[in-house]
Amino acid sequence: MNKKNNGTVYLVGAGPGDPDLLTVKAKRLLTQCNALVYDALISKELLKLTPNSCRHFFVGKRRANHSHDQNQINKFLVEISKDHKCVVRLKGGDPFLFGRGSEEAEWLIKHNIHVEVVPGITSGMAAPTYMGIPLTHRESASSVTFVTGHEGKDKRSPLVNWREIANATDGIVIYMGIHNLHYIVDELIAGGLDPETPSAIIQQGTLLNQKCIKAPLNKLLLKQKSRGIESPSIIVIGKVINHQIEKCSPKPTDFSLPEPKALSVSKKSKLIYTDKN
Amino acid sequence: MNKKNNGTVYLVGAGPGDPDLLTVKAKRLLTQCNALVYDALISKELLKLTPNSCRHFFVGKRRANHSHDQNQINKFLVEISKDHKCVVRLKGGDPFLFGRGSEEAEWLIKHNIHVEVVPGITSGMAAPTYMGIPLTHRESASSVTFVTGHEGKDKRSPLVNWREIANATDGIVIYMGIHNLHYIVDELIAGGLDPETPSAIIQQGTLLNQKCIKAPLNKLLLKQKSRGIESPSIIVIGKVINHQIEKCSPKPTDFSLPEPKALSVSKKSKLIYTDKN
Repeated sequence: MNKKNNGTVYLVGAGPGDPDLLTVKAKRLLTQCNALVYDALISKELLKLTPNSCRHFFVGKRRANHSHDQNQINKFLVEISKDHKCVVRLKGGDPFLFGRGSEEAEWLIKHNIHVEVVPGITSGMAAPTYMGIPLTHRESASSVTFVTGHEGKDKRSPLVNWREIANATDGIVIYMGIHNLHYIVDELIAGGLDPETPSAIIQQGTLLNQKCIKAPLNKLLLKQKSRGIESPSIIVIGKVINHQIEKCSPKPTDFSLPEPKALSVSKKSKLIYTDKN
Repeated sequence: MNKKNNGTVYLVGAGPGDPDLLTVKAKRLLTQCNALVYDALISKELLKLTPNSCRHFFVGKRRANHSHDQNQINKFLVEISKDHKCVVRLKGGDPFLFGRGSEEAEWLIKHNIHVEVVPGITSGMAAPTYMGIPLTHRESASSVTFVTGHEGKDKRSPLVNWREIANATDGIVIYMGIHNLHYIVDELIAGGLDPETPSAIIQQGTLLNQKCIKAPLNKLLLKQKSRGIESPSIIVIGKVINHQIEKCSPKPTDFSLPEPKALSVSKKSKLIYTDKN
């Protein structure tokens, strides 16, 4: 391997979407990078921060086909680092919390590529904040569990024991849980969680089209269906929702997530994968 | 109440300490504010971002005396907002995760003060990342629980059920847990957590003097004592530690946390409380 031409791949957390929530370091790297490799959950406004000469690569994944795509992305990152000095691999939220960042880092280091992780604000924290919902509160929550609702598809991941979680933690924040919501709610209640536990779903938190529904746990699915709440969403369950203070929530940004189609016609973007959904 | 002179209080998450991990919004507010009210876990470098005319107020709290101080801080924030247009209430990490942000927001809104929360990167995520430790991984963690180790002192908070947590979640991140470490480890093992579970403590993560120790859970206390690891620290427990990739961790910043004494002689600082420990 010709090591001397290899650049550095920065695994950068983009945060939840509002460009104001980028870290100083993430913004600096975006303004300097030669190549940008980004996911579906990245607002177009963030792409505009890169230099004109920066090449953009969209690697959005399809929900049903994660593991195959991840291998392709890993290989692509190795390739792209060979002729770009500064590669930003931009991920929604934080790279080390449900971001597959560690898998990409492992792969790149195995291939002698220099990698550096840059933390970002995770959507599971920012989306509730933009609704005025705290995740802990002295009166109702000393703990909060972040958990994926998109589990076990590849049979490698540890299964989530929803029934145990139901009793162990004061608050639950679920990522990618919309498609399993029926199952998750049933399991949590079977595990002993009060069916009346306050619950909320926040769609596209921090972004222009953010929406929030609230309901007792046993009515959450009904409300999600009737109000047409879809991915990407964060589900929050717990008494902390009673401490919601809407008046202190920041205004969402003016930007929205791009439609996959809009991305595919972007002049700057060379697509390596397209999201056909 | 004379409302027309009231300013806005921004409850701003400073992140874990590295100024590179400030959000764009937090940095902007720091460069614009008229008054800065800050805690013990704030690096002096962040204070330097404020305008020369900005007044600084240190409200660091003593561990044993939280609830009394919180009332004083709440009242002080109301006072200070009366004659400062832009007040930044700067908190280590994120204001809505173990940050008492919601209590301050509730109080201020009750007193007709305009408040806005600005999320920050929580130390429980950044400190492990700066050690190359991911919090989730497809092979070993689909969930992670953030929990306070400093519980129940004021008899209002829900008690942490460590025995239930032991079995419910794949990873545990404990804030302010050093002083209860003996009890926490005993309870987790009593709850069924394998005594050999990989564990780590990260002291002053992202800062100049960051230190990390690793040990199986049942040897963690011994190592913490022998290596002199103290607060502020983040404890991480779970198999994710086996996925540590040191080579991808960012360099810590050159800055450290100030000693309380150093703060008390700062020319810019008017102390409303001093940390006498």
